[in-house]
Amino acid sequence: MRLSGFVPPLCTPFTPGGEIDTASLRRLVEHLLAGGASALFALGTSGETAHLTAGQRRTVVRTVVDAAGGQVPVLAGVIDMTTPRVLEHARDAAEAGADVLVATAPFYSGVHPEETADHFRRVRDGAGLPLLAYDIPPCVHSKLPGDVLLSLAAEGTLIGLKDSSGDTNALRRLLVERHRRGLESVFSVLTGSELTVDAALLMGADGVVAGLGNVDPAGYTRVYELARTGEWKAAVAEQDRLAALFALVEAGSGMSGTASAIGGFKAALRLLGVIDCAATAPPLTALGEEGVGVVRELLVEAGLL
Amino acid sequence: MRLSGFVPPLCTPFTPGGEIDTASLRRLVEHLLAGGASALFALGTSGETAHLTAGQRRTVVRTVVDAAGGQVPVLAGVIDMTTPRVLEHARDAAEAGADVLVATAPFYSGVHPEETADHFRRVRDGAGLPLLAYDIPPCVHSKLPGDVLLSLAAEGTLIGLKDSSGDTNALRRLLVERHRRGLESVFSVLTGSELTVDAALLMGADGVVAGLGNVDPAGYTRVYELARTGEWKAAVAEQDRLAALFALVEAGSGMSGTASAIGGFKAALRLLGVIDCAATAPPLTALGEEGVGVVRELLVEAGLL
Amino acid sequence: MRLSGFVPPLCTPFTPGGEIDTASLRRLVEHLLAGGASALFALGTSGETAHLTAGQRRTVVRTVVDAAGGQVPVLAGVIDMTTPRVLEHARDAAEAGADVLVATAPFYSGVHPEETADHFRRVRDGAGLPLLAYDIPPCVHSKLPGDVLLSLAAEGTLIGLKDSSGDTNALRRLLVERHRRGLESVFSVLTGSELTVDAALLMGADGVVAGLGNVDPAGYTRVYELARTGEWKAAVAEQDRLAALFALVEAGSGMSGTASAIGGFKAALRLLGVIDCAATAPPLTALGEEGVGVVRELLVEAGLL
Amino acid sequence: MRLSGFVPPLCTPFTPGGEIDTASLRRLVEHLLAGGASALFALGTSGETAHLTAGQRRTVVRTVVDAAGGQVPVLAGVIDMTTPRVLEHARDAAEAGADVLVATAPFYSGVHPEETADHFRRVRDGAGLPLLAYDIPPCVHSKLPGDVLLSLAAEGTLIGLKDSSGDTNALRRLLVERHRRGLESVFSVLTGSELTVDAALLMGADGVVAGLGNVDPAGYTRVYELARTGEWKAAVAEQDRLAALFALVEAGSGMSGTASAIGGFKAALRLLGVIDCAATAPPLTALGEEGVGVVRELLVEAGLL
Repeated sequence: MRLSGFVPPLCTPFTPGGEIDTASLRRLVEHLLAGGASALFALGTSGETAHLTAGQRRTVVRTVVDAAGGQVPVLAGVIDMTTPRVLEHARDAAEAGADVLVATAPFYSGVHPEETADHFRRVRDGAGLPLLAYDIPPCVHSKLPGDVLLSLAAEGTLIGLKDSSGDTNALRRLLVERHRRGLESVFSVLTGSELTVDAALLMGADGVVAGLGNVDPAGYTRVYELARTGEWKAAVAEQDRLAALFALVEAGSGMSGTASAIGGFKAALRLLGVIDCAATAPPLTALGEEGVGVVRELLVEAGLL
Repeated sequence: MRLSGFVPPLCTPFTPGGEIDTASLRRLVEHLLAGGASALFALGTSGETAHLTAGQRRTVVRTVVDAAGGQVPVLAGVIDMTTPRVLEHARDAAEAGADVLVATAPFYSGVHPEETADHFRRVRDGAGLPLLAYDIPPCVHSKLPGDVLLSLAAEGTLIGLKDSSGDTNALRRLLVERHRRGLESVFSVLTGSELTVDAALLMGADGVVAGLGNVDPAGYTRVYELARTGEWKAAVAEQDRLAALFALVEAGSGMSGTASAIGGFKAALRLLGVIDCAATAPPLTALGEEGVGVVRELLVEAGLL
Repeated sequence: MRLSGFVPPLCTPFTPGGEIDTASLRRLVEHLLAGGASALFALGTSGETAHLTAGQRRTVVRTVVDAAGGQVPVLAGVIDMTTPRVLEHARDAAEAGADVLVATAPFYSGVHPEETADHFRRVRDGAGLPLLAYDIPPCVHSKLPGDVLLSLAAEGTLIGLKDSSGDTNALRRLLVERHRRGLESVFSVLTGSELTVDAALLMGADGVVAGLGNVDPAGYTRVYELARTGEWKAAVAEQDRLAALFALVEAGSGMSGTASAIGGFKAALRLLGVIDCAATAPPLTALGEEGVGVVRELLVEAGLL
Repeated sequence: MRLSGFVPPLCTPFTPGGEIDTASLRRLVEHLLAGGASALFALGTSGETAHLTAGQRRTVVRTVVDAAGGQVPVLAGVIDMTTPRVLEHARDAAEAGADVLVATAPFYSGVHPEETADHFRRVRDGAGLPLLAYDIPPCVHSKLPGDVLLSLAAEGTLIGLKDSSGDTNALRRLLVERHRRGLESVFSVLTGSELTVDAALLMGADGVVAGLGNVDPAGYTRVYELARTGEWKAAVAEQDRLAALFALVEAGSGMSGTASAIGGFKAALRLLGVIDCAATAPPLTALGEEGVGVVRELLVEAGLL
């Protein structure tokens, strides 16, 4: 199991009543597979996983696994504060058919490199599935140390990293050190920074997990393919187009950044006819009409509508 | 329901196998009631709640409610990332017999004052129990705005605040503004800063929720009573003694601050014969023998052993 | 030289043309001495020292020393990034007649406890004047470690601390440890948190350096005297009145916090007839008419106008 | 004046007595010109400017201007807390013959976008030299907003940016927006992130200001030239080699990051025979023998020794 290419972190569509809209979720899976996804990442940050109950999470993984039908691997996030709670999600996800788990460092509680390593080892062992580390300091407020990650890779605990730290210097050092230790074939590095995918691929990253990829999967697939074949000028142009589209995460005002970003993705998916309802989970403020108008214009500018 | 006095945030004792040690938990309740607790706060940060599964949390609340036997109110923390997940804990706690719920701002996800207010309103309405806000920026990485808190108090959503922000300037402004709006009788302010309880009470706080109070409940009860009767010099002396004892949170090394602090509290409780086992939850590193030795010395110095 | 009581950090009045207004500065000194100041702190953060050239700083110290006429000691801030630059200010201040220097940790550059200690030693030795450490993390972005401070006190490098960290827990630990090491007679602790002076004095601080004290020196002198004589209820009431007045630091909008706070202090001083012009230094935005109106109302509410 | 290519931020060599070592500084200029520098940046962060007095700064600029002999433009940093102080340095630098000034946002004092814009306008007007903005949040603790930068570019206040923020997402958005507003020909973007120069150039940056470029100027010139001619694979390989060499900034232990980084650069320059003495400015801890050994090994590995 070596991950590469475009791996979208799926939004989680809701019905107006706040239940998981499995029909829309299935259409989203089709949309992403049609757009060239090499794997599907359910229950990431873009999936509002922090807002989903254990029951809803199980529904999401089962639906995505079923809709994927074995065409590509399904990754499942197991986002929670600490090991015992993450383990519960891990077992649920395994039972629901996920192929790979994705876990962050502990949060709310304090962290220490050895405790973080212990955490990943327990999650890996407890669920019996390959494990990807998810580095997302804006949400968990600590950064996964490169050293720890590569040691965990060498011992077989981790098969890769989703790097949503935005820390390109640290990414460079990790990639250089991964090469020095000869771990490239066993440890995938996927960038979660949707604005700089071309740069990450140039530096040696293996793929991309981009929330905006829900909206324009073919765009990110193109960036990946152009980079893979060394057509850097075209890769940059495509990434620049996507960077302009990314403005939809700021379509909302008077709300949290999460509400605006997820609201923007979902409004776009509804305008594109992929999902039925753009509702977000409590307590996120809903995107207003004006915000939806901004999203519509950006879709038109990007050539998607 | 107006909270005041010493309200200990209970540690959660584990068996060596990692299960809730309900016998030890009952003894802890007795220890705290004997020490003068005016209410009991189960499932706070000191209770390793971030490390407990939903099932374990239910066991804790049921045990504490039963052991308290109606002598004092039982507060239950409902610590989780966002509203839908907090609501599940809230309903569980209500069913287990809690009298009051204690909820933080959303975390992991983004926050906005209006979303935070919406969050507290939904938790209050969803569980039908009085609600205390828990301001703990070191864990949730946002600060509850005083303005929002007092508006929620005025409308009946919140009955009080546990302030673990360590931001004494903000506390002063909140207390002055609480008075200006005439909300003193409906909105309790409890400090969670165990080193400055005398100062908070001087400024007008109503009580204290101190993790160290697990170890020396009588000490915190004395600080409260001395402050209440205006014996400030004696209150300060007692607080100074407790401040010296607080060094036990730094007994550990090579571990997270959480591991060292909770490990210190639990080692002390075991040395005092209150609980049977000082184990902490994964992935927290256990306090070593040297650390336990430091704790023992501090207990002796504080006159507790 | 042991500092205690009310030590105001003087605002620096400007002429409309941006020069030091020495006549206004002299009147400010009189106003503060009449209000009970036990020492005068020129060139602190409230003095816009970060905005003053070396020449302007010399003018300020000379003016304050002359106006004080030996009635009380004059402290001079030597705020700059690193040791060689601080030493230049230190020599200037010594030459201009200052009695005590006040220095922060290095900033802009990185910091390390041993480098910080070395910094204070060099400043102490280079200028030959008693030295007060100035802990102000919001400006210098590091916190002075209590351990380092007390070691520097024990060896004779520091005579005290101005604590503007707002970290009351750290203050408590410092005060308890100062007592344990028997350093109370050689190391003064002055709080710079104008909202919680009563609390700091209760805990054992020796005095207060409060920017708001420019506006109401008699108020802070009263808080200090009431605390000294154990009249805590009255001390709290006076502090509460000052806390309400402190809202003037938020009179401005569309500007930095510094611009609003210093603008608020200066507008108040002009309304009280102490200084001639409320101008602040570039690039701070000037307080508008609306802001000045807010300040006026607050002065009336506080009984000062 | 449009900046591009490799623009090294010169280290400032000291004599063992702490004076500016002008002979070594001249040799450093020769070393950098021989290595392909397209301009020279004196008095940046790597130049320990935060540790230099006004007199020392003048000596540095005069020496670099003289040694450059008009072959390439000389940029001079004017690093200080606020406008009036920066203006003094700006006039000094202009008088000493600098061609371009480089200024950060205000620091120590609060910041607001409009005040920051005002700051740059006053510095531009006051010294009459082209002005480059220097975005370095790790030192000044605020980030220059892209919007403000581009408005200042459009009005002629700024000719470019040195981006040492490490925030590649913000860099992408700035570059995309610069293109949208048609400002590419008047606003240069230079990256200050020495580990990701290839990535920045791919995205559209015009050049690089890399502290490590003091040590290996030819390496950075190669990265730039390879990128310019579209030889991305070779550019990445060269950048990877430099990234490995960059480990010399961590050669020190028991000291600040600044001390270790600058100490590492200077130890390398001394080992390469460019400067005579590796001393750093107070209070930075000197690199020990062990650290120098690490630097030597890294130079050998990088093929420089």
